[in-house]
Amino acid sequence: MGDVYAVVNQKGGVGKTTTSINLAACAALDGKRVLLVDLDAQGNATSGAGVDRSALTASMFDVMTASDPGESAELLHHIIAPTNVVGLDVAPATIDLAGSDLSLANSIAREMRLSRALAEVREEYDITLIDTGPSLGILTINALAAADWVIVPIQCEYYALEGLSQLLQVIDLVRSQLNPDLRLAGAILTMFDARTRLSFEVAEEVRANFPGRVYDRLIPRNVRLAEAPSYGQPVVVYDPTCAGAQAYQQVYEEMFADESARTGARPVGVDIVNEDAESGDIAGRGGSD
Amino acid sequence: MGDVYAVVNQKGGVGKTTTSINLAACAALDGKRVLLVDLDAQGNATSGAGVDRSALTASMFDVMTASDPGESAELLHHIIAPTNVVGLDVAPATIDLAGSDLSLANSIAREMRLSRALAEVREEYDITLIDTGPSLGILTINALAAADWVIVPIQCEYYALEGLSQLLQVIDLVRSQLNPDLRLAGAILTMFDARTRLSFEVAEEVRANFPGRVYDRLIPRNVRLAEAPSYGQPVVVYDPTCAGAQAYQQVYEEMFADESARTGARPVGVDIVNEDAESGDIAGRGGSD
Repeated sequence: MGDVYAVVNQKGGVGKTTTSINLAACAALDGKRVLLVDLDAQGNATSGAGVDRSALTASMFDVMTASDPGESAELLHHIIAPTNVVGLDVAPATIDLAGSDLSLANSIAREMRLSRALAEVREEYDITLIDTGPSLGILTINALAAADWVIVPIQCEYYALEGLSQLLQVIDLVRSQLNPDLRLAGAILTMFDARTRLSFEVAEEVRANFPGRVYDRLIPRNVRLAEAPSYGQPVVVYDPTCAGAQAYQQVYEEMFADESARTGARPVGVDIVNEDAESGDIAGRGGSD
Repeated sequence: MGDVYAVVNQKGGVGKTTTSINLAACAALDGKRVLLVDLDAQGNATSGAGVDRSALTASMFDVMTASDPGESAELLHHIIAPTNVVGLDVAPATIDLAGSDLSLANSIAREMRLSRALAEVREEYDITLIDTGPSLGILTINALAAADWVIVPIQCEYYALEGLSQLLQVIDLVRSQLNPDLRLAGAILTMFDARTRLSFEVAEEVRANFPGRVYDRLIPRNVRLAEAPSYGQPVVVYDPTCAGAQAYQQVYEEMFADESARTGARPVGVDIVNEDAESGDIAGRGGSD
């Protein structure tokens, strides 16, 4: 109960926000109480879940920069907003979060702020998902320090594995210094295009690098996935029958079908990804992006 | 001579990279020696200028994290790569940069690393442009600390002014603590769509908030601007006659037409943007993004 998942990849445009919103919505539609924490200054999870950022008087920025843990937890309670999806609440982000590095530069225990703020709140939810931005800065470290599980979306594109060994090193660092219980839930392959050979090659290479830790179901490139955010809805609500929605539904089922199996998941370590893979055929292929 | 421009906005997707590449290319085509420093971990300025990230053995990450200023300057010399545009060189970025916050957390003078690395190199160029990522973290602070001028791209969209007062506060902070010579060159309005009333309204509101500091020429939404990066070319080279290319050419001419006039530019301060504007009609308009 009360498990916390951080959706992390320091590369931009890999589908972190889409993954966060839709797994959160799938869980809510499944009858669970779900909290989606938006820890990306761009606030796309917030608006994509239908919460109007312009109407907010406080946000995760205030939670992260509050003067003490008690105030921080109180603020988190205060900012959590319901969405149009029954059971799904959002802790919203605004662009202020982009200044967190500066605001937290000299703060005590600055890596543990989210963890402490979530300590009580997380027990009110069956699942908490944290969306993060394209950085390994203080916000992402807070997400990893607060989480039980890491979900890594990986796009089926050139440079897919770029940065993954660095990400696993950071996860390892957080696990050894801040959060010994942190484990890798799995990698989700996104933006899969069955018409291109590249998509198949990348999928294969990712599976070779994360053996047994990649969800079977691939998330396709899908126009409905791209459209849904502008309607402030998860795609699984906006168009539940489209390919993108069904794919997220299936990943959700894989993820929670066999909770006990996860207990045996091997701890995350840099050994999982072969360093050489970064300069390998697919990851290192040159050209455009 | 040797002026350094930082292209900054902590919002993502406002056109920082497109602006950096194309102003740099315009200057090179104008016969100037130009250095484009990619300080965004996503490396899109690097690949967009035609430099293959997968072939790099060192990048701006090494420059920023070197053990002393001498080594840092040497590494910068070493990584600078020519492009297919005569006169335009690039100091490339790789995804490693996403971990800079962690790597620099306890470093001495960590805000001044770029400034020191550029101290000699900048004199080899007429113009240095620094592309930055969607954050106000340590990399963006370094860009501001190293620059003479700030260029702020602003998209003609909902929430256009969101975050701008925070950005101006940070510029003010850098100016008072690190770099007294830092000044605002101007704001460039991007993604202007003459078919929408919103674009005109946003443009008007931005001009009201930055009186005399917004370039006249608007950068239109233009499919060639979107396509050019996948060919590793600035749009002013890829298709010099398209609307996007001509717009950047004109902004470039505005920017450098009257160098003397800029000397009188008033220093940047939080007074320039009215705090209330953020919750005003256009900036605060709700809905999707």
